[in-house]
Amino acid sequence: MTITILTIFPESFESFLQTPVVARAREKGLVTIDIVDIKEYAHGSFRHIDDSPFGGGAGMVMRCQPVLDALREVRSRSDNEPLVVAMTPAGKKYDQKAAHRYADLDHLVLLCGHYEGMDARILDHVDEEVSLGDFILTGGELPAMTITDSIARLLPGALRKASTEDESFEDGLLEYPQYTQPRDYEGEPVPEVLLSGDHGRIRRWRRKESLRLTRERRPDLFEEYIAAGKLTEEDRELLLELEAET
Amino acid sequence: MTITILTIFPESFESFLQTPVVARAREKGLVTIDIVDIKEYAHGSFRHIDDSPFGGGAGMVMRCQPVLDALREVRSRSDNEPLVVAMTPAGKKYDQKAAHRYADLDHLVLLCGHYEGMDARILDHVDEEVSLGDFILTGGELPAMTITDSIARLLPGALRKASTEDESFEDGLLEYPQYTQPRDYEGEPVPEVLLSGDHGRIRRWRRKESLRLTRERRPDLFEEYIAAGKLTEEDRELLLELEAET
Repeated sequence: MTITILTIFPESFESFLQTPVVARAREKGLVTIDIVDIKEYAHGSFRHIDDSPFGGGAGMVMRCQPVLDALREVRSRSDNEPLVVAMTPAGKKYDQKAAHRYADLDHLVLLCGHYEGMDARILDHVDEEVSLGDFILTGGELPAMTITDSIARLLPGALRKASTEDESFEDGLLEYPQYTQPRDYEGEPVPEVLLSGDHGRIRRWRRKESLRLTRERRPDLFEEYIAAGKLTEEDRELLLELEAET
Repeated sequence: MTITILTIFPESFESFLQTPVVARAREKGLVTIDIVDIKEYAHGSFRHIDDSPFGGGAGMVMRCQPVLDALREVRSRSDNEPLVVAMTPAGKKYDQKAAHRYADLDHLVLLCGHYEGMDARILDHVDEEVSLGDFILTGGELPAMTITDSIARLLPGALRKASTEDESFEDGLLEYPQYTQPRDYEGEPVPEVLLSGDHGRIRRWRRKESLRLTRERRPDLFEEYIAAGKLTEEDRELLLELEAET
C-alpha cells in the first residue's frame, strides 16, 4: 500500500521513517511512504502557507490554496482513488478498527493540519477527519506517524512475531500480563502457573487476567465485549471464579 | 520542568526534538528533555533488554533489570520526586486535563514500553499508566512524543500565540471553524458574519458553531459540558437558535 503524508514539516518525519518496524515494512516493499511538503505548492513569491483568521483572533490559519493544490496533485497521481483523512481535533477517535480498515487500502492520504487550525473549506475536500484523542498538539504530524505505525505493523510480514492476535483491542479485551526472566526479581516472583508447563492452565489463567484487567481498567470495553455477544462459556466460568475471589 | 524519557530507541526522538514548538521551549529553558537509553543499563556481555515470555507465546518481553535500574538512577538524580508514567495499552486515556496536570510538574518521567510488552513487575514501580487510545503501536515512543508535545505547548512562552484558551477541549467544547484569505475560494465563500467587523456578532457566531460542532460530532463531550453546569445563558439562547434552524 501507499501512505502519502501532506505536511508543512516534512523534516519531522526523518527519524520516524528509520524506526525498525516502519523501516522493515518499507524495505520489504509492504508500504511506500511519501512525504509531501505543502510549502512547495504555495503560490507567490512569499509562498505563504497561512494567514490571519477572518473575524480576528490569535494565531494563523492554513490557507486553502497550497493544501488543496497539493491534494489535487496527489489524487491525480494515484492509480486508485485514495482515502483522504485529515487530522483534526473534531475528527472521529482513531482506534484499532480504523487501523485495520486503513491497512486494507491501496492508498491512504494523511493531511496534517497545524495547531492553529486549517481553513474550514479545506475539510470539504477530505473523506474523513480523525483525532487521536482529546488533547491538543502542535500539528497533525505526530498523529500521522502514530497512524502510520499502527498500520505498518498490521501489514503481513512487517513484524517478526507470527501474529498480532493476542494483543490488546484485537479481540476486544486488554492483553494479559507478561513475565520474563528472572523467576524472582528482587523478591517479586513470576506467577507459578506460568512456570507449570501446563498449556491449558496457562491459557485459562491468561484469559482470566485479560477479563480481570479489562473489567477493572476499562469497564466501557468490558460492556462492549458483553454487548457484542463475545463472552464464551469459558469466559463465564472465569468471571464466576473472579467473583468468588473478591 | 524536566521531562525524562526512558526508551530502547533513543534515536527515534532526534527529529522530534528539532520540531519548532519543542525546540523553542527547550531554547527558552522552559523544558529540559532527557532521553535515557535503557540499553545502557542492561547487564551482561549481551546486554539483553528482552527475553521470551514465561508460559510461552510469540514475541519478546522487556526485562525488569535494565528498565528498573535506569528508573532508579533517574529517580536518584532528581531533585524532586518525579512522577513516573508508563505508556501501556491498559493505561488511563490521556487527555487535555492530564496535559495540564503534567505541565505543572517539576519532573515527569515517561517510560516507553515496546509493543510485545513489558514484564508486569515493572509496572509495580511506576506511578501511573497512560494510553493514547485504543490502538496498538510498535512502542511507547510516539505516545511519549505526543505527550511531550502537548505539554511543551502549554508552558508559558512556548507559543507565539497569546493564549490557548480558544482551543478545542480547553473549555469542554470543540473549536469553531476558522477561515482565512481568500474571501472566495473557487466558489466557496467565507461566512459573511466573519467579514462584518461586528465583534459581538462574530463572538456569538463562533460560540454557536462550537456548540453545534460539539453536539454533532461529540455528543459525549456535549453531555459532559451540560452535566458540569457550564451552559451559560447565552449558550441556552444559541441552542434554541440551533433548534429553530433544523
